[in-house]
Amino acid sequence: MTRSLADFGVAAHLAAAPDNILRELIQLSLDAKDLISLAGGLPADDLMDTIGIREATERVLSGNTRAYLQYGATEGVASLRERLAGITRDRGVAVDETGVVVTSGAQQANDLVARCLLQPGDGVLVERPTFVTALQTFRAAQATLFGVGSDRDGPMVSACEEAVAAARAQGRRIKLFYVVPTFTNPAGRVTTEARRRDLIAFALRHGITIVEDDPYGELWFDHPPPPPLAALADEEAAAHVIYVSSLSKTLSPGLRVGWLCAPAALSRAMRLMKSTADIHSSVFAQSVADAYLASGRLAARAPVLRSGYKARCSALATALDAHLGDSFAFEAPEGGMFIWGRLNGVDDTNAFARRAVSRAGVSVVPGEPFFEAAPETGWLRLSFSQGAHATLADGARRLARAVEAWREA
Amino acid sequence: MTRSLADFGVAAHLAAAPDNILRELIQLSLDAKDLISLAGGLPADDLMDTIGIREATERVLSGNTRAYLQYGATEGVASLRERLAGITRDRGVAVDETGVVVTSGAQQANDLVARCLLQPGDGVLVERPTFVTALQTFRAAQATLFGVGSDRDGPMVSACEEAVAAARAQGRRIKLFYVVPTFTNPAGRVTTEARRRDLIAFALRHGITIVEDDPYGELWFDHPPPPPLAALADEEAAAHVIYVSSLSKTLSPGLRVGWLCAPAALSRAMRLMKSTADIHSSVFAQSVADAYLASGRLAARAPVLRSGYKARCSALATALDAHLGDSFAFEAPEGGMFIWGRLNGVDDTNAFARRAVSRAGVSVVPGEPFFEAAPETGWLRLSFSQGAHATLADGARRLARAVEAWREA
Repeated sequence: MTRSLADFGVAAHLAAAPDNILRELIQLSLDAKDLISLAGGLPADDLMDTIGIREATERVLSGNTRAYLQYGATEGVASLRERLAGITRDRGVAVDETGVVVTSGAQQANDLVARCLLQPGDGVLVERPTFVTALQTFRAAQATLFGVGSDRDGPMVSACEEAVAAARAQGRRIKLFYVVPTFTNPAGRVTTEARRRDLIAFALRHGITIVEDDPYGELWFDHPPPPPLAALADEEAAAHVIYVSSLSKTLSPGLRVGWLCAPAALSRAMRLMKSTADIHSSVFAQSVADAYLASGRLAARAPVLRSGYKARCSALATALDAHLGDSFAFEAPEGGMFIWGRLNGVDDTNAFARRAVSRAGVSVVPGEPFFEAAPETGWLRLSFSQGAHATLADGARRLARAVEAWREA
Repeated sequence: MTRSLADFGVAAHLAAAPDNILRELIQLSLDAKDLISLAGGLPADDLMDTIGIREATERVLSGNTRAYLQYGATEGVASLRERLAGITRDRGVAVDETGVVVTSGAQQANDLVARCLLQPGDGVLVERPTFVTALQTFRAAQATLFGVGSDRDGPMVSACEEAVAAARAQGRRIKLFYVVPTFTNPAGRVTTEARRRDLIAFALRHGITIVEDDPYGELWFDHPPPPPLAALADEEAAAHVIYVSSLSKTLSPGLRVGWLCAPAALSRAMRLMKSTADIHSSVFAQSVADAYLASGRLAARAPVLRSGYKARCSALATALDAHLGDSFAFEAPEGGMFIWGRLNGVDDTNAFARRAVSRAGVSVVPGEPFFEAAPETGWLRLSFSQGAHATLADGARRLARAVEAWREA
């Protein structure tokens, strides 16, 4: 009498899809008591400019009610689009507001691009490892994923070329290359400027569209990263790059304000897909973001975020060295929110992560879901964004205990 | 050197898709000066409870910042889900909060359902005419649409059965039946309780899932409409109904807060699809909606909306009778925001609507985009939700002038 998924006709790919472990662990970390979370991808609550956001909201409330309560334009609130275009130009990318679509976070931008460009079976290049929710998007589009390994400079062009050849042998066209060139999630890597140029040339050579996802670019510690790919591309190449970013890591993820800058030829299709998805993003949230950006406080906030995250990264890295030593091999990142490293002698990190919560009171993210296929084993992603230094140190201590318990079991 | 849509590999169905004329006309009506708009689907600005929303926002701002600025749960803010479940129960539908997913407006709910259940080529039943943006969603899913005509009681079961037979002859399975049983957009129709029961039996007979979209149900003029299909379904049938609603017409569309109630078997797939789409809806906007609902002001607002819209409907209907007479045949609706009628002697309403803006200073929505195929001609959708009574009367006068000019041309 109860209907099964098959009775509803839910597609097999969806019925079989794994839950997003990242979302699960965020939920876990929101709910948990007496647990030290190194798992979440949550920006630091205590580094958010809550006063600035409150003031911005007050300004919105004292303005024209129609501007924040009524339906709005599909592509976003006009003045916010101008400001986001300005932020993007400050990063070196030549855009004006006509190229900007405001989205409900960067995730929706990635999803809209996938829905616009991908048909079932189309090929998508992704880094190994890459952002797990982006993988979810490309799987929902029923794309065929091709993983690209990296060296110290970033994704290897030789691996990209091999993927193109492999796709061709399967009769597939690779349409998209999803790249996070600056402080990747999970690995914290930065692609060099030279390699960025090589990747652009590769995309141009094969008529592949690059989706450049840049949520973390502002969160550098000691020196700014190379310019975005979209900034390095000449006019011809720029038609091969869709630039995606978000205010989630610099202002607030709860607002859900992201944006994409697409080549002009795509703007109508993007707008149509956006209206199909949700008509437009919350104009209330957009108006608050707009008023905040108008206040000029974001520029003042960036150094606060950078030094705050740098200190936390350093605190966690020092504690990991002290308590885990050779048991956990990692390189400290130069920005972003994550330390990515490999446990010595632990292969099944999914089981390890579950046990770390229940036995050692620390949550971490296992590395396997970040691989499009054939996951490497032993990797963990640790976030240093939340906790105070003492908490991070205690987290590392608990992690060491979890490793000991694992070895003894 | 410029890349075409084909170069990007944008699917033909998307490249060829018409712009959503409704969105265009909303934009037009937002931008225009000295134009009387009978086109928008915008709720009345002056009937919105702006004081209540401001107070709710103030309460959110004075609370825990994490609750409105941090990442949240994919399925929505817990207390908001409870309140939306309560609203749904008040309409007679047996749900608890575990069945509720908060979405970015009802449109996203429809889109998530389509993405969960539809594969290219699957069949979808729709009323003739039906909500244009829902058509856009089913087209994006590359579904095959089957139109169902109505009699005075609602969509005809005989037409539904014919569509099932036609689909079967094409080797297709009809998976969804998209229905707006109360105050349809555009036609303002209400399906009788008996017909609602017949439609449920039809869906059960064929294993079809009904998507019941109910944004307007609260906006009745003199007597409440029959219960939702989801309320009339017994336990077995309830597994065949997904109930969708929204706060856009009763509170504010700018917040973008809608919801869906899905059978338990679908909840995991829905959550996964929601996280793919945008991780979660703006928790800032959700928190404002939650605080507003907590204030209890929505119940007090409903009679204000009902009497306001009833008076506007009556003002427009009276003016249409006076100025257009036999030139425009319509039946005044018993709720909602729209009058749907047919122009006598005007077939090409797309051209007529464009000319009415430029020559007579009035905007209306042509009926053709509301038909899934083989559009009936001569229909217009007129909204009475915005304008004051005098403005609505002037709009009718301008419309009469546009008809005269059309006949003279």
